[in-house]
Amino acid sequence: MSAPTERITIKDVAAAAGVSKGAVSLAFNHKPGVSEATRERIFAVARQLGWAPNSSARSLSRQAVDTIGLAICRPAKLLGLEPFYMEFISGIESVLAERDCSLLLRLVGSLEEEIQLQERWWRQRQIGGSIVVDLREADPRIEPLRGLKLPAVTVGHPSLTGGFPSVWTDDATAVGEAVRYLAALGHRRIARVGGPTDLGHSAIRADAFQSTMRELGLDGGQHMETDFSGEEGARATRSLLLSAHRPTAVLYDNDIMAVAGLGVATEMGIAVPDELSLLAWDDSQLCRLTHPTLSAMSHDVHTFGAKVAQALFQVIAGDDIASRPAATPRLVPRGSTAPPRPER
Amino acid sequence: MSAPTERITIKDVAAAAGVSKGAVSLAFNHKPGVSEATRERIFAVARQLGWAPNSSARSLSRQAVDTIGLAICRPAKLLGLEPFYMEFISGIESVLAERDCSLLLRLVGSLEEEIQLQERWWRQRQIGGSIVVDLREADPRIEPLRGLKLPAVTVGHPSLTGGFPSVWTDDATAVGEAVRYLAALGHRRIARVGGPTDLGHSAIRADAFQSTMRELGLDGGQHMETDFSGEEGARATRSLLLSAHRPTAVLYDNDIMAVAGLGVATEMGIAVPDELSLLAWDDSQLCRLTHPTLSAMSHDVHTFGAKVAQALFQVIAGDDIASRPAATPRLVPRGSTAPPRPER
Repeated sequence: MSAPTERITIKDVAAAAGVSKGAVSLAFNHKPGVSEATRERIFAVARQLGWAPNSSARSLSRQAVDTIGLAICRPAKLLGLEPFYMEFISGIESVLAERDCSLLLRLVGSLEEEIQLQERWWRQRQIGGSIVVDLREADPRIEPLRGLKLPAVTVGHPSLTGGFPSVWTDDATAVGEAVRYLAALGHRRIARVGGPTDLGHSAIRADAFQSTMRELGLDGGQHMETDFSGEEGARATRSLLLSAHRPTAVLYDNDIMAVAGLGVATEMGIAVPDELSLLAWDDSQLCRLTHPTLSAMSHDVHTFGAKVAQALFQVIAGDDIASRPAATPRLVPRGSTAPPRPER
Repeated sequence: MSAPTERITIKDVAAAAGVSKGAVSLAFNHKPGVSEATRERIFAVARQLGWAPNSSARSLSRQAVDTIGLAICRPAKLLGLEPFYMEFISGIESVLAERDCSLLLRLVGSLEEEIQLQERWWRQRQIGGSIVVDLREADPRIEPLRGLKLPAVTVGHPSLTGGFPSVWTDDATAVGEAVRYLAALGHRRIARVGGPTDLGHSAIRADAFQSTMRELGLDGGQHMETDFSGEEGARATRSLLLSAHRPTAVLYDNDIMAVAGLGVATEMGIAVPDELSLLAWDDSQLCRLTHPTLSAMSHDVHTFGAKVAQALFQVIAGDDIASRPAATPRLVPRGSTAPPRPER
């Protein structure tokens, strides 16, 4: 393939229409100074040459937003493996498609890198607004992004978002429901395989787990921290199942770790659900493809992503919106949970 | 949150530095006409105000590419469910991160929509080049994109890419290897659960499957067409296992369908691998999390995505590159394949 040729510029359009560059600019910015006939001729020529005002000029003049940003601070390798982000992005895209808008996506290695990136995206007018995910406690991104006056929607509990509007799921309530369900089945030794506790939502879930266990008078349930990958989910499950007082039920923080847990149980000859109950989180298609199927705290991640995008467009339009809860994950019992076998 | 305030413009920088807008432009475009001292003052003021030339002006003047495009023509809902695209994107992102470049991502509903989108992205200078995926036979995107002289790399067999450089995997060879492996284990009734045949690579795999079966003297193997989802993979497997001459081995076109196939076999009480061998494709983490683990035609999708991005940067730089094969998927035997049980 040959190297790309020069693109059509405003100069070419002006020359072809027999007008000045200023006249082309006036016509496209809908400003006075060119006659109706000239404006029509300029538009016809531009269409013919396939020229349009460049995007930054356009967004300045018409305030049209054709791009929003999303930076994700997770290792590239890991991102490919968890269904959550792809479903979340597919939900965002379903709203963007209606508005003829694209997503500028970037994986960053640190929050500092994300701050610089968001600043550059915004100052250079590459985006009309941004989605900020994986909030930490006292998140270092909040202050700099507020300083930029970047239109943004955060994903996380309102206690974490420093005044930015957010869309969030009530994870504490959902964890409480999950633990109470397992306890109601008769489980006393319940363990949890969670995500990294430096993430705000992981910390909230971990706290809710411990406090619900205490409330129910169950001894401090074992809690394993992972990076959300199936491999670490498998390792954590193996370690729990080898412990002296092995749990009879395990609550996972996503679905791929629960699938991994089921694989480990099968490999160790521990019957699910007869000898071990497994409860997943997020509930992608995966949970319905295994045998037994996986009970889950089900969460429509696609719709969640769509809600976030809708909220961002309101913020971009200048609306002063409140943080809004997405649907709370709800229990979908399937084949992987049952009462524990009586101890002999 | 308050509405965003006005952004800093070149006018503000010029005023603060006590120069004309033209002088700021000359300084940032590294053109003569401003003294070294003035240039330094302009840079200092711009840094202080946090201003940078806008991205389109920048890419025109320095040919810096800070964004590349990727449009995917698949239903948003489906995209979240298959590990392939997220791993592919994570591979692209690993190369973009090194170059401080972002990915403009869009889900489109039709190839016509993609053509219009790519044209707009390119003409409005939102992207420096694009990645074109899921090529069809006689793909309608080829001609219009060639007309644009859009720097692009396609993903697909060179027979499909109409002269665009491509990065491709030799699927025909890999399918041949897969079928020969199953035949060598002793399987005679081998079926295949494939993707939609309007996709070029699905058609190539389907042809390779039939021709290898013929070569080996095996009667036309059953072939089921799906949309790549786990649900359709489960349905196809159920239908195969209920047929009069049920296959003893099934080759899948991705990994989520193979996971689904394993779930169906378990549900029907058909032992894997004793009574049924399953062979997956792509080989994400999923294949190592099930029990038995899934044998697969393994394909490093992350590295594949990275190779595509590297090729695109060469094209953008004006290099006349040849299409290049990525590594051919290779057989990784695990627990889901074995010789068939002798017929009684």
